[in-house]
Amino acid sequence: MYYTDYRDAGFLAYVDSSMQARGGQKPVIFSKVEYNNQKNYNPVTGVYSVPLDGLYLIHVRIYGEDNDATHFIRVNGEEVAITEDYNPNNKLQSSSTSIVLHLKKGDQLTADVNFQRTLSGSPDSMLSSFGVNLFSLD
Amino acid sequence: MYYTDYRDAGFLAYVDSSMQARGGQKPVIFSKVEYNNQKNYNPVTGVYSVPLDGLYLIHVRIYGEDNDATHFIRVNGEEVAITEDYNPNNKLQSSSTSIVLHLKKGDQLTADVNFQRTLSGSPDSMLSSFGVNLFSLD
Amino acid sequence: MYYTDYRDAGFLAYVDSSMQARGGQKPVIFSKVEYNNQKNYNPVTGVYSVPLDGLYLIHVRIYGEDNDATHFIRVNGEEVAITEDYNPNNKLQSSSTSIVLHLKKGDQLTADVNFQRTLSGSPDSMLSSFGVNLFSLD
Repeated sequence: MYYTDYRDAGFLAYVDSSMQARGGQKPVIFSKVEYNNQKNYNPVTGVYSVPLDGLYLIHVRIYGEDNDATHFIRVNGEEVAITEDYNPNNKLQSSSTSIVLHLKKGDQLTADVNFQRTLSGSPDSMLSSFGVNLFSLD
Repeated sequence: MYYTDYRDAGFLAYVDSSMQARGGQKPVIFSKVEYNNQKNYNPVTGVYSVPLDGLYLIHVRIYGEDNDATHFIRVNGEEVAITEDYNPNNKLQSSSTSIVLHLKKGDQLTADVNFQRTLSGSPDSMLSSFGVNLFSLD
Repeated sequence: MYYTDYRDAGFLAYVDSSMQARGGQKPVIFSKVEYNNQKNYNPVTGVYSVPLDGLYLIHVRIYGEDNDATHFIRVNGEEVAITEDYNPNNKLQSSSTSIVLHLKKGDQLTADVNFQRTLSGSPDSMLSSFGVNLFSLD
Protein backbone atom coordinates (compact mmCIF):
# COMPACT_ATOMS: atom_id res chain seq x y z
CA MET A 1 0.00 0.00 0.00
CA TYR A 2 1.15 3.47 -0.78
CA TYR A 3 1.16 4.53 2.81
CA THR A 4 2.21 1.31 4.50
CA ASP A 5 5.67 2.75 4.99
CA TYR A 6 4.42 4.95 7.77
CA ARG A 7 1.19 3.30 8.84
CA ASP A 8 2.99 0.19 9.98
CA ALA A 9 5.13 2.11 12.47
CA GLY A 10 4.49 0.31 15.72
CA PHE A 11 5.42 -2.58 17.92
CA LEU A 12 4.06 -5.08 20.39
CA ALA A 13 6.14 -6.78 23.06
CA TYR A 14 5.41 -8.81 26.15
CA VAL A 15 6.87 -10.42 29.23
CA ASP A 16 7.53 -14.07 28.48
CA SER A 17 8.26 -15.33 31.98
CA SER A 18 7.07 -14.21 35.40
CA MET A 19 9.55 -12.09 37.26
CA GLN A 20 9.88 -9.77 40.18
CA ALA A 21 8.67 -6.32 39.14
CA ARG A 22 11.22 -3.57 39.63
CA GLY A 23 8.96 -0.71 40.74
CA GLY A 24 10.69 2.61 41.36
CA GLN A 25 9.77 4.13 38.00
CA LYS A 26 12.04 1.68 36.20
CA PRO A 27 10.63 0.71 32.80
CA VAL A 28 9.23 -2.77 32.54
CA ILE A 29 11.38 -4.68 30.07
CA PHE A 30 8.93 -6.31 27.70
CA SER A 31 11.67 -8.50 26.29
CA LYS A 32 9.73 -10.75 23.93
CA VAL A 33 8.96 -8.96 20.67
CA GLU A 34 5.76 -9.93 18.90
CA TYR A 35 6.46 -7.40 16.12
CA ASN A 36 8.68 -4.36 15.81
CA ASN A 37 7.91 -3.00 12.39
CA GLN A 38 10.50 -0.30 12.09
CA LYS A 39 12.80 -1.39 14.91
CA ASN A 40 11.86 1.61 17.03
CA TYR A 41 11.35 -0.50 20.15
CA ASN A 42 14.40 -1.61 22.13
CA PRO A 43 13.62 -4.87 23.96
CA VAL A 44 16.72 -4.50 26.15
CA THR A 45 15.76 -1.11 27.60
CA GLY A 46 11.96 -1.23 27.19
CA VAL A 47 11.99 2.11 25.34
CA TYR A 48 9.96 2.92 22.21
CA SER A 49 11.44 5.84 20.23
CA VAL A 50 8.80 7.72 18.26
CA PRO A 51 9.80 7.77 14.55
CA LEU A 52 7.51 10.55 13.27
CA ASP A 53 5.30 13.34 14.65
CA GLY A 54 1.78 11.98 14.90
CA LEU A 55 -1.09 10.52 16.86
CA TYR A 56 -0.25 7.17 18.39
CA LEU A 57 -2.42 4.49 19.96
CA ILE A 58 -0.74 3.19 23.12
CA HIS A 59 -2.00 0.00 24.71
CA VAL A 60 -0.63 -1.50 27.90
CA ARG A 61 -1.78 -4.54 29.83
CA ILE A 62 -0.17 -5.42 33.15
CA TYR A 63 -0.83 -8.72 34.86
CA GLY A 64 0.54 -8.88 38.35
CA GLU A 65 0.26 -10.32 41.81
CA ASP A 66 -0.05 -7.51 44.29
CA ASN A 67 -2.58 -5.38 46.12
CA ASP A 68 -2.91 -3.40 42.97
CA ALA A 69 -1.73 -3.70 39.40
CA THR A 70 -1.16 0.01 38.89
CA HIS A 71 0.86 1.02 35.86
CA PHE A 72 2.18 4.24 34.40
CA ILE A 73 2.87 5.40 30.86
CA ARG A 74 5.75 7.84 30.55
CA VAL A 75 6.93 10.14 27.76
CA ASN A 76 10.56 11.15 28.20
CA GLY A 77 10.35 9.97 31.80
CA GLU A 78 7.34 12.14 32.65
CA GLU A 79 4.22 10.33 33.80
CA VAL A 80 1.33 10.97 31.41
CA ALA A 81 -1.22 8.36 32.48
CA ILE A 82 -1.92 6.11 35.47
CA THR A 83 -4.23 3.11 35.53
CA GLU A 84 -4.85 1.30 38.78
CA ASP A 85 -6.60 -1.90 39.64
CA TYR A 86 -6.96 -2.52 43.32
CA ASN A 87 -7.71 -5.81 44.95
CA PRO A 88 -7.24 -7.18 48.41
CA ASN A 89 -5.12 -10.18 49.29
CA ASN A 90 -2.47 -9.86 46.58
CA LYS A 91 -4.45 -11.78 44.01
CA LEU A 92 -3.41 -12.00 40.40
CA GLN A 93 -5.12 -9.53 38.14
CA SER A 94 -4.72 -7.14 35.23
CA SER A 95 -4.99 -3.48 34.53
CA SER A 96 -5.25 -2.18 30.99
CA THR A 97 -4.91 1.16 29.26
CA SER A 98 -5.69 2.34 25.78
CA ILE A 99 -5.06 5.96 24.91
CA VAL A 100 -4.25 8.04 21.81
CA LEU A 101 -1.61 10.75 22.23
CA HIS A 102 0.15 13.28 20.05
CA LEU A 103 3.85 12.46 20.14
CA LYS A 104 6.91 14.07 18.62
CA LYS A 105 9.71 12.39 16.69
CA GLY A 106 12.30 11.26 19.19
CA ASP A 107 9.94 11.01 22.17
CA GLN A 108 10.79 8.05 24.39
CA LEU A 109 7.85 5.95 25.60
CA THR A 110 8.01 3.54 28.51
CA ALA A 111 5.61 1.74 30.85
CA ASP A 112 6.30 0.89 34.46
CA VAL A 113 4.53 -0.42 37.56
CA ASN A 114 4.38 0.65 41.16
CA PHE A 115 4.87 -2.74 42.73
CA GLN A 116 7.81 -5.02 43.30
CA ARG A 117 6.07 -8.35 43.57
CA THR A 118 5.37 -10.75 40.73
CA LEU A 119 4.84 -9.40 37.22
CA SER A 120 3.30 -12.26 35.28
CA GLY A 121 4.52 -13.49 31.93
CA SER A 122 4.28 -16.56 29.77
CA PRO A 123 5.98 -17.67 26.55
CA ASP A 124 2.67 -18.89 25.16
CA SER A 125 0.25 -16.05 25.79
CA MET A 126 0.51 -12.31 26.34
CA LEU A 127 -0.33 -11.48 29.95
CA SER A 128 1.70 -8.27 30.33
CA SER A 129 2.17 -6.42 27.05
CA PHE A 130 3.07 -2.97 25.71
CA GLY A 131 2.28 -1.79 22.22
CA VAL A 132 2.27 1.41 20.20
CA ASN A 133 0.82 2.00 16.73
CA LEU A 134 0.89 5.11 14.58
CA PHE A 135 -2.70 6.28 14.17
CA SER A 136 -2.19 9.27 11.88
CA LEU A 137 0.57 11.70 10.96
CA ASP A 138 0.61 15.29 12.16
CA MET B 1 -0.72 14.55 4.43
CA TYR B 2 -3.50 14.43 1.90
CA TYR B 3 -6.00 13.00 4.33
CA THR B 4 -4.92 14.59 7.57
CA ASP B 5 -7.86 16.95 7.34
CA TYR B 6 -10.21 14.21 8.38
CA ARG B 7 -7.93 11.67 10.03
CA ASP B 8 -6.98 14.07 12.77
CA ALA B 9 -10.59 14.48 13.91
CA GLY B 10 -10.47 13.63 17.58
CA PHE B 11 -9.76 14.87 21.05
CA LEU B 12 -8.39 13.85 24.41
CA ALA B 13 -9.33 15.53 27.68
CA TYR B 14 -8.91 14.73 31.34
CA VAL B 15 -9.81 15.71 34.86
CA ASP B 16 -7.03 17.84 36.27
CA SER B 17 -8.05 17.92 39.92
CA SER B 18 -9.92 15.47 42.11
CA MET B 19 -13.56 16.34 42.63
CA GLN B 20 -16.80 14.90 43.81
CA ALA B 21 -18.35 12.88 40.99
CA ARG B 22 -21.84 13.99 40.01
CA GLY B 23 -23.44 10.62 39.26
CA GLY B 24 -27.05 10.73 38.06
CA GLN B 25 -26.20 10.38 34.36
CA LYS B 26 -24.59 13.78 34.32
CA PRO B 27 -21.61 13.91 31.94
CA VAL B 28 -18.22 14.02 33.56
CA ILE B 29 -16.63 17.34 32.65
CA PHE B 30 -13.14 16.48 31.45
CA SER B 31 -12.12 20.10 31.60
CA LYS B 32 -8.43 19.92 30.75
CA VAL B 33 -7.90 19.54 27.02
CA GLU B 34 -4.85 17.57 25.92
CA TYR B 35 -5.78 18.09 22.25
CA ASN B 36 -8.96 19.02 20.43
CA ASN B 37 -8.02 18.84 16.78
CA GLN B 38 -11.11 20.23 15.18
CA LYS B 39 -12.69 21.82 18.24
CA ASN B 40 -15.50 19.27 18.33
CA TYR B 41 -15.13 18.70 22.06
CA ASN B 42 -16.63 21.19 24.48
CA PRO B 43 -14.68 21.17 27.75
CA VAL B 44 -17.41 23.13 29.53
CA THR B 45 -20.19 20.62 28.85
CA GLY B 46 -18.14 17.43 28.39
CA VAL B 47 -19.80 16.77 25.01
CA TYR B 48 -18.01 15.61 21.84
CA SER B 49 -19.97 16.41 18.67
CA VAL B 50 -19.24 13.97 15.86
CA PRO B 51 -18.03 15.93 12.79
CA LEU B 52 -18.42 13.27 10.08
CA ASP B 53 -20.13 9.89 9.61
CA GLY B 54 -17.58 7.21 10.36
CA LEU B 55 -16.06 4.63 12.66
CA TYR B 56 -14.64 6.16 15.83
CA LEU B 57 -12.35 4.76 18.48
CA ILE B 58 -13.64 5.80 21.92
CA HIS B 59 -11.39 5.37 24.93
CA VAL B 60 -12.38 6.21 28.48
CA ARG B 61 -10.47 5.74 31.71
CA ILE B 62 -12.11 6.50 35.03
CA TYR B 63 -10.14 6.62 38.26
CA GLY B 64 -12.27 6.88 41.34
CA GLU B 65 -12.65 6.14 44.98
CA ASP B 66 -15.77 4.10 45.50
CA ASN B 67 -17.03 0.57 45.75
CA ASP B 68 -16.91 0.47 42.00
CA ALA B 69 -15.59 2.67 39.24
CA THR B 70 -18.41 1.96 36.82
CA HIS B 71 -18.70 4.26 33.84
CA PHE B 72 -21.05 4.66 30.91
CA ILE B 73 -20.59 5.89 27.36
CA ARG B 74 -23.63 7.63 25.91
CA VAL B 75 -24.60 8.65 22.38
CA ASN B 76 -27.27 11.35 22.37
CA GLY B 77 -27.96 10.54 26.00
CA GLU B 78 -28.57 6.84 25.38
CA GLU B 79 -26.30 4.42 27.18
CA VAL B 80 -24.31 2.33 24.69
CA ALA B 81 -21.66 0.74 26.88
CA ILE B 82 -21.03 0.06 30.57
CA THR B 83 -17.72 -0.89 32.15
CA GLU B 84 -17.58 -1.74 35.83
CA ASP B 85 -14.76 -2.36 38.22
CA TYR B 86 -15.84 -3.52 41.62
CA ASN B 87 -13.77 -3.46 44.76
CA PRO B 88 -14.57 -3.58 48.41
CA ASN B 89 -13.74 -0.84 50.89
CA ASN B 90 -13.94 2.17 48.57
CA LYS B 91 -10.38 1.88 47.40
CA LEU B 92 -9.02 3.94 44.54
CA GLN B 93 -9.03 2.16 41.23
CA SER B 94 -9.66 2.52 37.52
CA SER B 95 -11.95 1.14 34.89
CA SER B 96 -11.15 1.48 31.21
CA THR B 97 -13.01 1.06 27.95
CA SER B 98 -11.92 0.96 24.37
CA ILE B 99 -14.53 0.44 21.68
CA VAL B 100 -15.03 1.30 18.00
CA LEU B 101 -18.49 2.52 17.00
CA HIS B 102 -20.20 3.79 13.88
CA LEU B 103 -21.35 7.31 14.58
CA LYS B 104 -23.29 9.88 12.58
CA LYS B 105 -22.43 13.52 12.03
CA GLY B 106 -23.95 15.49 14.88
CA ASP B 107 -24.05 12.63 17.38
CA GLN B 108 -23.27 13.81 20.90
CA LEU B 109 -20.87 11.65 22.92
CA THR B 110 -20.52 11.81 26.68
CA ALA B 111 -19.14 9.68 29.50
CA ASP B 112 -20.49 9.52 33.02
CA VAL B 113 -20.11 7.53 36.21
CA ASN B 114 -22.54 5.94 38.65
CA PHE B 115 -20.93 7.17 41.82
CA GLN B 116 -20.86 10.42 43.72
CA ARG B 117 -17.69 10.01 45.68
CA THR B 118 -14.22 11.11 44.58
CA LEU B 119 -13.35 11.19 40.89
CA SER B 120 -9.58 11.45 40.75
CA GLY B 121 -7.68 13.99 38.70
CA SER B 122 -4.25 15.52 38.55
CA PRO B 123 -2.71 18.38 36.56
CA ASP B 124 0.40 16.31 35.91
CA SER B 125 -0.90 12.95 34.76
CA MET B 126 -4.08 11.64 33.17
CA LEU B 127 -5.99 9.54 35.68
CA SER B 128 -9.52 10.03 34.36
CA SER B 129 -9.61 10.73 30.63
CA PHE B 130 -11.99 10.65 27.66
CA GLY B 131 -10.90 10.55 24.06
CA VAL B 132 -12.35 9.95 20.61
CA ASN B 133 -10.49 9.48 17.33
CA LEU B 134 -11.85 9.04 13.82
CA PHE B 135 -10.86 5.56 12.66
CA SER B 136 -12.29 5.60 9.13
CA LEU B 137 -14.97 7.42 7.18
CA ASP B 138 -18.23 5.77 6.21
CA MET C 1 -13.20 7.32 0.22
CA TYR C 2 -10.83 5.50 -2.08
CA TYR C 3 -9.72 3.06 0.58
CA THR C 4 -12.94 2.57 2.48
CA ASP C 5 -13.30 -0.84 0.89
CA TYR C 6 -10.63 -2.25 3.11
CA ARG C 7 -10.50 0.21 6.00
CA ASP C 8 -14.02 -0.64 7.03
CA ALA C 9 -13.20 -4.33 7.56
CA GLY C 10 -14.34 -5.01 11.10
CA PHE C 11 -17.23 -5.84 13.34
CA LEU C 12 -18.68 -5.26 16.77
CA ALA C 13 -21.02 -7.67 18.53
CA TYR C 14 -22.31 -8.06 22.05
CA VAL C 15 -24.28 -10.26 24.41
CA ASP C 16 -27.85 -9.00 24.56
CA SER C 17 -29.12 -11.02 27.51
CA SER C 18 -27.42 -12.40 30.58
CA MET C 19 -26.60 -16.07 30.36
CA GLN C 20 -24.57 -18.77 31.97
CA ALA C 21 -21.02 -18.55 30.66
CA ARG C 22 -19.75 -21.76 29.06
CA GLY C 23 -16.12 -21.70 30.20
CA GLY C 24 -13.97 -24.58 28.96
CA GLN C 25 -12.36 -22.63 26.13
CA LYS C 26 -15.66 -22.44 24.29
CA PRO C 27 -16.03 -19.15 22.40
CA VAL C 28 -18.46 -16.67 23.84
CA ILE C 29 -21.28 -16.22 21.34
CA PHE C 30 -21.70 -12.48 20.97
CA SER C 31 -24.97 -12.96 19.16
CA LYS C 32 -26.15 -9.38 18.75
CA VAL C 33 -24.39 -7.68 15.86
CA GLU C 34 -23.83 -3.93 16.16
CA TYR C 35 -22.06 -3.87 12.78
CA ASN C 36 -20.42 -6.47 10.58
CA ASN C 37 -19.03 -4.50 7.70
CA GLN C 38 -17.87 -7.28 5.45
CA LYS C 39 -19.76 -10.16 7.04
CA ASN C 40 -16.58 -11.72 8.37
CA TYR C 41 -18.06 -12.29 11.83
CA ASN C 42 -20.35 -15.24 12.40
CA PRO C 43 -22.80 -14.46 15.24
CA VAL C 44 -23.80 -18.13 15.52
CA THR C 45 -20.29 -19.46 16.19
CA GLY C 46 -18.65 -16.34 17.65
CA VAL C 47 -15.80 -16.57 15.11
CA TYR C 48 -14.29 -13.62 13.20
CA SER C 49 -12.50 -14.72 10.01
CA VAL C 50 -9.70 -12.35 9.04
CA PRO C 51 -10.29 -11.09 5.46
CA LEU C 52 -6.83 -9.67 4.65
CA ASP C 53 -3.30 -9.81 6.03
CA GLY C 54 -2.83 -6.79 8.26
CA LEU C 55 -2.66 -5.18 11.65
CA TYR C 56 -5.96 -5.43 13.54
CA LEU C 57 -7.23 -3.68 16.63
CA ILE C 58 -9.00 -6.20 18.86
CA HIS C 59 -11.16 -4.94 21.72
CA VAL C 60 -12.96 -7.17 24.18
CA ARG C 61 -15.01 -6.25 27.23
CA ILE C 62 -16.37 -8.96 29.51
CA TYR C 63 -18.88 -8.20 32.21
CA GLY C 64 -19.52 -11.08 34.54
CA GLU C 65 -20.48 -12.21 37.97
CA ASP C 66 -17.73 -14.37 39.38
CA ASN C 67 -14.60 -14.28 41.44
CA ASP C 68 -12.82 -13.03 38.39
CA ALA C 69 -13.82 -11.86 34.94
CA THR C 70 -10.85 -13.38 33.16
CA HIS C 71 -11.03 -13.59 29.40
CA PHE C 72 -8.88 -14.96 26.62
CA ILE C 73 -8.36 -13.97 23.02
CA ARG C 74 -7.58 -16.86 20.70
CA VAL C 75 -6.25 -17.04 17.14
CA ASN C 76 -7.02 -20.39 15.52
CA GLY C 77 -7.78 -21.78 18.97
CA GLU C 78 -4.42 -20.77 20.44
CA GLU C 79 -4.51 -18.40 23.38
CA VAL C 80 -2.70 -15.16 22.54
CA ALA C 81 -3.76 -12.87 25.39
CA ILE C 82 -5.26 -13.17 28.87
CA THR C 83 -6.82 -10.36 30.87
CA GLU C 84 -7.97 -11.00 34.42
CA ASP C 85 -9.94 -8.99 36.89
CA TYR C 86 -10.16 -10.50 40.31
CA ASN C 87 -12.64 -9.61 42.99
CA PRO C 88 -13.90 -11.34 46.06
CA ASN C 89 -17.49 -12.34 46.68
CA ASN C 90 -18.58 -12.97 43.09
CA LYS C 91 -19.46 -9.37 42.44
CA LEU C 92 -20.31 -8.08 38.99
CA GLN C 93 -17.43 -6.47 37.19
CA SER C 94 -15.68 -6.06 33.86
CA SER C 95 -12.35 -6.82 32.33
CA SER C 96 -11.25 -5.16 29.12
CA THR C 97 -8.55 -5.69 26.52
CA SER C 98 -7.31 -3.63 23.64
CA ILE C 99 -4.45 -4.96 21.57
CA VAL C 100 -3.14 -4.62 18.00
CA LEU C 101 -1.96 -7.84 16.33
CA HIS C 102 -0.67 -8.87 12.94
CA LEU C 103 -3.11 -11.41 11.53
CA LYS C 104 -3.20 -13.46 8.37
CA LYS C 105 -6.07 -13.89 5.95
CA GLY C 106 -8.18 -16.79 7.16
CA ASP C 107 -7.14 -16.55 10.81
CA GLN C 108 -10.04 -17.34 13.14
CA LEU C 109 -10.48 -15.02 16.12
CA THR C 110 -12.52 -15.86 19.20
CA ALA C 111 -12.88 -14.68 22.79
CA ASP C 112 -13.76 -16.87 25.74
CA VAL C 113 -13.95 -16.75 29.53
CA ASN C 114 -12.76 -19.02 32.32
CA PHE C 115 -15.91 -18.99 34.37
CA GLN C 116 -19.28 -20.67 34.15
CA ARG C 117 -21.37 -18.29 36.17
CA THR C 118 -23.29 -15.31 34.83
CA LEU C 119 -22.03 -13.49 31.74
CA SER C 120 -23.93 -10.22 31.67
CA GLY C 121 -25.77 -8.86 28.67
CA SER C 122 -28.46 -6.37 27.85
CA PRO C 123 -30.38 -5.46 24.71
CA ASP C 124 -29.98 -1.76 25.45
CA SER C 125 -26.32 -1.34 26.29
CA MET C 126 -23.12 -3.20 25.52
CA LEU C 127 -21.81 -4.86 28.66
CA SER C 128 -19.91 -7.77 27.11
CA SER C 129 -18.66 -6.99 23.61
CA PHE C 130 -16.10 -8.21 21.06
CA GLY C 131 -14.86 -6.15 18.16
CA VAL C 132 -12.12 -6.20 15.55
CA ASN C 133 -11.09 -3.41 13.16
CA LEU C 134 -8.48 -3.42 10.42
CA PHE C 135 -5.79 -0.94 11.41
CA SER C 136 -3.50 -1.17 8.37
CA LEU C 137 -2.69 -3.63 5.62
CA ASP C 138 0.52 -5.62 5.56
